[in-house]
Amino acid sequence: MERKTTIHDIARELNTTAATVSRALNNHPSISAATKEMVRETAARLNYRQNKLASSLRSGRTHTIGVIIPSAEISFFGSVVHGIERVARSKGYRVLLFQSNEDPSCEAEGIEALLQSKVDGIIASVAKETTRYQHYLEVKERNIPLVLFDRVDDSLQVPSVVIDDYKGAYMATMHLIEQGYTRIAHISGQQHIKIFNDRLRGYADALRVRGLPVEDDLIAYGKVSVDSGRDCTDKLLSSAVPPDAIVAVEDFTALGAMQSIKRIGLHIPREIGLIGFANEAFSSYITPSLSTIDQQTIKMGEEAALLFLDLRKKKENGQTNAEKIVLDPVLLIRESSQRINV
Amino acid sequence: MERKTTIHDIARELNTTAATVSRALNNHPSISAATKEMVRETAARLNYRQNKLASSLRSGRTHTIGVIIPSAEISFFGSVVHGIERVARSKGYRVLLFQSNEDPSCEAEGIEALLQSKVDGIIASVAKETTRYQHYLEVKERNIPLVLFDRVDDSLQVPSVVIDDYKGAYMATMHLIEQGYTRIAHISGQQHIKIFNDRLRGYADALRVRGLPVEDDLIAYGKVSVDSGRDCTDKLLSSAVPPDAIVAVEDFTALGAMQSIKRIGLHIPREIGLIGFANEAFSSYITPSLSTIDQQTIKMGEEAALLFLDLRKKKENGQTNAEKIVLDPVLLIRESSQRINV
Repeated sequence: MERKTTIHDIARELNTTAATVSRALNNHPSISAATKEMVRETAARLNYRQNKLASSLRSGRTHTIGVIIPSAEISFFGSVVHGIERVARSKGYRVLLFQSNEDPSCEAEGIEALLQSKVDGIIASVAKETTRYQHYLEVKERNIPLVLFDRVDDSLQVPSVVIDDYKGAYMATMHLIEQGYTRIAHISGQQHIKIFNDRLRGYADALRVRGLPVEDDLIAYGKVSVDSGRDCTDKLLSSAVPPDAIVAVEDFTALGAMQSIKRIGLHIPREIGLIGFANEAFSSYITPSLSTIDQQTIKMGEEAALLFLDLRKKKENGQTNAEKIVLDPVLLIRESSQRINV
Repeated sequence: MERKTTIHDIARELNTTAATVSRALNNHPSISAATKEMVRETAARLNYRQNKLASSLRSGRTHTIGVIIPSAEISFFGSVVHGIERVARSKGYRVLLFQSNEDPSCEAEGIEALLQSKVDGIIASVAKETTRYQHYLEVKERNIPLVLFDRVDDSLQVPSVVIDDYKGAYMATMHLIEQGYTRIAHISGQQHIKIFNDRLRGYADALRVRGLPVEDDLIAYGKVSVDSGRDCTDKLLSSAVPPDAIVAVEDFTALGAMQSIKRIGLHIPREIGLIGFANEAFSSYITPSLSTIDQQTIKMGEEAALLFLDLRKKKENGQTNAEKIVLDPVLLIRESSQRINV
């Protein structure tokens, strides 16, 4: 029987160290692409078979993080995942993704699929339709590291990264006030989702601080989609005293609002101001370009990954915690809200 | 010791059958959301623990499909994944995703991670930078089902789903000719990627068929990004005899082209026509809205999943095949190319 090729054989062949070969095979960032390629080729030529599963069984780890996102079609989540991957890869971890499609049973199944895949733990953003957290509680109770980002539930008491949604909406509304708008409406989202409620409160408080009306007629409750944004805006604009500006709960809603406003023929930002939330990829491309709140997605992902790695270590030492990192929102002023100096 | 709860206990409690309980717990589409919720609650109350891993070890299957996509930030891939999930879920499969970030070593690692996760097989779209296919060949040689979509390599001889890229670019170019444009440029992508070369040939043949010039000066080779589209267009427009229309290899390139054209102050579509490829989410939102080629993403995903399930069955029967499904592109005429009747 032929002797099995080891990393030492590959190292000898390439006149390098076994450590370098191991790192190259594990795609470690300190190794150049050229070396990795050379090692991979030599490994293939010598018929080397890496047994990652065996080594993970020895260590009890797979160095894989499972990430649950509501949808890969929302660029916000794709961008956060890039942040998670950036940190994860630099620490020798890789990332498997699961889309919940905003559906609680699908989300529960995703957790099951990832755990069955032997991930070391889970980083997740909660589906819009989720109102019970049993599947997340179970992860926590099984002592598997769990970190939440953006859409979190504080009652779970796990580490999380969010931006200050209240502050973001407050800043957005204050910006419209400073541009001279006086009758500012808000299209919100589902109120059982904390971030949407936070944004609603931020909007209302900014108006109160400046002595502007907070009226029920100025607040619409939508479903966080282009269609819903359009419908809500149709209604707002057809009211007896229509608004002269709109704070949308997120950019897809703002996009629908923009379509409704254009259809009526009002000029943005001269006759009506508009601001979104989330800085979706399309928001800088549309005409007029959409003012919005940037959520520091890459940083959010990086912080989530760091919390995860930290949690892993703490769990080994028998500690637990529920650290919450709150990132600052960033106001992006574009054409849709800039009435002064236009 | 307490007796372990079984699905029969849950069925008795709910006055239903064990089969219904099992289907509900496995999120089968034939079971209503209300029933699933009820079963889950009862299962939790009775402390039932589903051992999917054990049942998958018995069957040798995990009913999980691993999907490798270049980037979750490109909505095309997100949309194909929805198509894959739609079929997969209806057949009791779930989907784990891995992003290659267009990097070959990352891609190889993704395959490793998915196989280590015991997926039943892989559906993939090849990274832009991949020029060697060793990691894919290995999957095939290990007799693990592998299906490719969109970015495929025919030499691998595995089942695949693509659209007819040649025909798509041919249709796009023919449309511009019919709108009266006579000096039509093309911004292509990396030529080692077959779909980009196919599109280039479709463009050139449409011009030839109508007796229009195919000139080197009219063809730019970009890097498939907004920046690259802008740079290529800057060059095309500053040439001695600039084009009066541009076929962009994909929508991000077209978006860059639009930015360049707007900066120069030319009117789209009156002075210059523009068409993209891929129908990215933003393309209908920008102004002017972008004409493009729709790639039937949902259908592509569904067909890929069906090929996968088919391949699984055939492998069990000792058959192999490399069926290739070619979908028809769909021309979407929007504002950016519609000069007649405007």
